[in-house]
Amino acid sequence: MGPASSTHKASDKRADARLVPCEIVWFAPQHHGDERPVARVAASRQCAEMEETDDPANLARIRSSFAKQGLMSTLGARLGDISRGSVEISLPPSPAISQQHGFVHAGAISAVADTAAGYAALSTMAPGRGVLTTEFKINLLAPAVGDRFIARGKVLKAGKTLTLAQAEVFAEKDGALRLIAFLTATLMAIEGRDGITD
Amino acid sequence: MGPASSTHKASDKRADARLVPCEIVWFAPQHHGDERPVARVAASRQCAEMEETDDPANLARIRSSFAKQGLMSTLGARLGDISRGSVEISLPPSPAISQQHGFVHAGAISAVADTAAGYAALSTMAPGRGVLTTEFKINLLAPAVGDRFIARGKVLKAGKTLTLAQAEVFAEKDGALRLIAFLTATLMAIEGRDGITD
Amino acid sequence: MGPASSTHKASDKRADARLVPCEIVWFAPQHHGDERPVARVAASRQCAEMEETDDPANLARIRSSFAKQGLMSTLGARLGDISRGSVEISLPPSPAISQQHGFVHAGAISAVADTAAGYAALSTMAPGRGVLTTEFKINLLAPAVGDRFIARGKVLKAGKTLTLAQAEVFAEKDGALRLIAFLTATLMAIEGRDGITD
Amino acid sequence: MGPASSTHKASDKRADARLVPCEIVWFAPQHHGDERPVARVAASRQCAEMEETDDPANLARIRSSFAKQGLMSTLGARLGDISRGSVEISLPPSPAISQQHGFVHAGAISAVADTAAGYAALSTMAPGRGVLTTEFKINLLAPAVGDRFIARGKVLKAGKTLTLAQAEVFAEKDGALRLIAFLTATLMAIEGRDGITD
Repeated sequence: MGPASSTHKASDKRADARLVPCEIVWFAPQHHGDERPVARVAASRQCAEMEETDDPANLARIRSSFAKQGLMSTLGARLGDISRGSVEISLPPSPAISQQHGFVHAGAISAVADTAAGYAALSTMAPGRGVLTTEFKINLLAPAVGDRFIARGKVLKAGKTLTLAQAEVFAEKDGALRLIAFLTATLMAIEGRDGITD
Repeated sequence: MGPASSTHKASDKRADARLVPCEIVWFAPQHHGDERPVARVAASRQCAEMEETDDPANLARIRSSFAKQGLMSTLGARLGDISRGSVEISLPPSPAISQQHGFVHAGAISAVADTAAGYAALSTMAPGRGVLTTEFKINLLAPAVGDRFIARGKVLKAGKTLTLAQAEVFAEKDGALRLIAFLTATLMAIEGRDGITD
Repeated sequence: MGPASSTHKASDKRADARLVPCEIVWFAPQHHGDERPVARVAASRQCAEMEETDDPANLARIRSSFAKQGLMSTLGARLGDISRGSVEISLPPSPAISQQHGFVHAGAISAVADTAAGYAALSTMAPGRGVLTTEFKINLLAPAVGDRFIARGKVLKAGKTLTLAQAEVFAEKDGALRLIAFLTATLMAIEGRDGITD
Repeated sequence: MGPASSTHKASDKRADARLVPCEIVWFAPQHHGDERPVARVAASRQCAEMEETDDPANLARIRSSFAKQGLMSTLGARLGDISRGSVEISLPPSPAISQQHGFVHAGAISAVADTAAGYAALSTMAPGRGVLTTEFKINLLAPAVGDRFIARGKVLKAGKTLTLAQAEVFAEKDGALRLIAFLTATLMAIEGRDGITD
C-alpha cells in the first residue's frame, strides 16, 4: 500500500467521524445495589482502537497536558488518580479563588469540574487527538465550603466526534465527602488541527 | 401541644426550607467496580422525615399522580418500577410520537425523562408536597430507534426546596440496552399552594 | 480542472466543516415586536452558501418537514411564521398534554421549543442537510397556563457542524404575552446520511 | 399595629416569596449596541420594590461586591458598565488562565460569564439580598482567542426566589466582536442568611 491509499483511508475515517458515533459506552451502574456489569458494545473497528488507550503512556499524556494548563496552576488545582474514562482533580480553598461571601467561587469549581470531565474524555481517545468542551451544565448544590474539593470526571458515552462526560464535585470536611456540584459536558474530539492535541 | 405552638413549628420549617438544603444524599456509586455503599447523611430532624417515605401508600400517590398526566397517556408512556429516589417509565415507539426522519422525537424522550426525574424527586418528599421542574438539560446521544425506550430517574441530591435528579434513557433493541439520552433536572418542592400536590 | 481536483476541493471543505465554525451570526431578534434587521457577518465563501437559503422553496421544506413530525400533530402544535434563522410554533392547551396539576406538561413545552430551535437552525442550512438536536437546556419560569403558547426559535450562531439556537416560549393570556420558558439547543448538521434530510 | 400582626405580614410575604414569581421581565437588550429601552411589567406590589434599585448606591454595592471576589482579581477580570439588569466584565488573555492548547480556559470564560449573569441578577434586587448561582449552562462556540474577552450579563426574568439571566461572551480582535460563548444561569436570592448579602 502506498501513501495515496493510506491517505484515502484516513479521509474515509474522517468522514465517518462526523456521522457514526462510536458505540462504546462506559457506564455506569448509576445506583445503589446495581450489580449489572458495565455495558460495552464495540460497534466497529474504530471503537476497538479506543480499547488500547489504558497503557501508562496514554495516561502520561494527560499529566503532561494538565501541566500545560496555566489556569489549573493559577487556581492551585492538582491532578489525582487517572484511569481510562475517569480523572480526579483536587482543589484547596484559598482567598485567591473566593467569591464575595468567602466561599470558593462557582467559576473555580466549574473550571476543575470541566477539566476533570474533559480529561476523562481524552483518556478514552487515541493519542494525537485533542478535545474541546462544546458545552457544559453545572448544578451547584451547596456553597463551596470545605477543607478541599475533589472533582471526579467520568465518561458517560464515548463517541468518535462527541463524548458525554460528567463530573461530581465533593467538599471534603473532617474526612467526610459531600456532593456540592454535578456537571455534564459535551467534548468534541479534534484531530489534524494544528496545535490541538492532548 | 396547642395550635399556637404547632403553627410556630410550621413557620420555622418554612423559613428553613428556603435556606437549609437537606443533607441527605442518595447517590450513586457512579462507576464500574465502585462498591462503596450509598452515602447518606441525615443532617437534621427534617431529613429524618424523608426517611419515612418508602411505604406503599407514599409510592401509591406517584402512580395516582402519573395517571393524571394527560401527556403521558397521549404519548403511550407507562410507569414501571418505583422506589424511594428511583422511578422508571417506558415508552413504545409509534408514528404518533415521531420526528421528521421517523425516529422518536427528542421532545417525547425528554418528556418521559423529565417525568421520571420528577417522580424520583417526589418519591423522597413527604405527602402533601408537589414538585415542579425548574430546569432540565438533556444530552441526546443517539437517534431514538428501538423496540422500546426506558427512562430511569434517580435523585442525586434531595433538598428541602431544590432537588437534583437525573434520568438515563435507554433504547432496548433485541433485549440489549443502549444509553441514548442523559438528563439532569432541578425540581422545586411546592407546599401549601392550591392544587400543587403530588 | 478535472474530477480529481474537484474531489479534493470537496474533501478540503469537509475537513474545514469540522473545524472552522462558520462566522455568520444571525443575531437574533430576541423578542416579540423587535423589528431590527438581523445582524449578519459573512466570514467566508462557505458562509456565502448559507446566504442562499431564504427563498420560498427553502422555507417550504420546513413546512413539509414539520408536517412529517407525528409528535407535533399529536400535541396539536402548529407552525407559524418562518424566515431564515427564525421559526415560530404555537400550541393550544388541552387535557391531552397536561401534567398532574392541570398545567401543560413541561415535556410538551420542551418539545415545541426544541422543534422551533431546530427548524430555526435548519432554515440556515443548504437543502439536503438534516439536523439533529444533540442537547438542550430549558428553564421553566412559570407554570404553563394560558390561552395558547408560542415558541420562538432563533439561531444564535450558525456553524457548519454545530449550530446554537434558542427558543423563548410565551404564554398568551388575554392578548398579553408572558415569558414562561427559555431554551438553548445545540443542533448538529447531518449530510449524506441516509434518511436524515430536512 | 402590634408585633403579632407585623409577624403575620412578614410570614405572608415569605410564603409568597417561594411561590409567586415576580412578573417583572427585564427584557433584555440582548446585544451590543442595542439601545432599545428595557421592557418592564410590574405585576405586583412586591415587584414595585425592585423598581427602586437603579440608584447609584445600589449599583455601587455591585462594584464593592466584585472587589471582594478573589477569583476575579486572580483571573485579571475587570468590571465594566453596569446598570439595572445588565453587567459587563472584561478579561484579558494571559498564560495564567490558559488551557493546554494556549487558548483561554473554558473555566475562566465560564467564571466571568457566570459572574456577569449573577451581578445582573443582583442589580435587580433590593439591598440586603445576596445571590447564589444554582446552575448554569454554557455553550462554547469557538476557542477563546482574542485581544480581550467581554462578558455581558442580562436578566431574562427576575423572580423573587429564582432569577434567570444570560451572558454572552465576545472575543474582541482588531476592534471586532465575535460571539464565543453563551450562558444561561439560575440565581437564587438569599435573604436573612448570615454573611450572604450583595
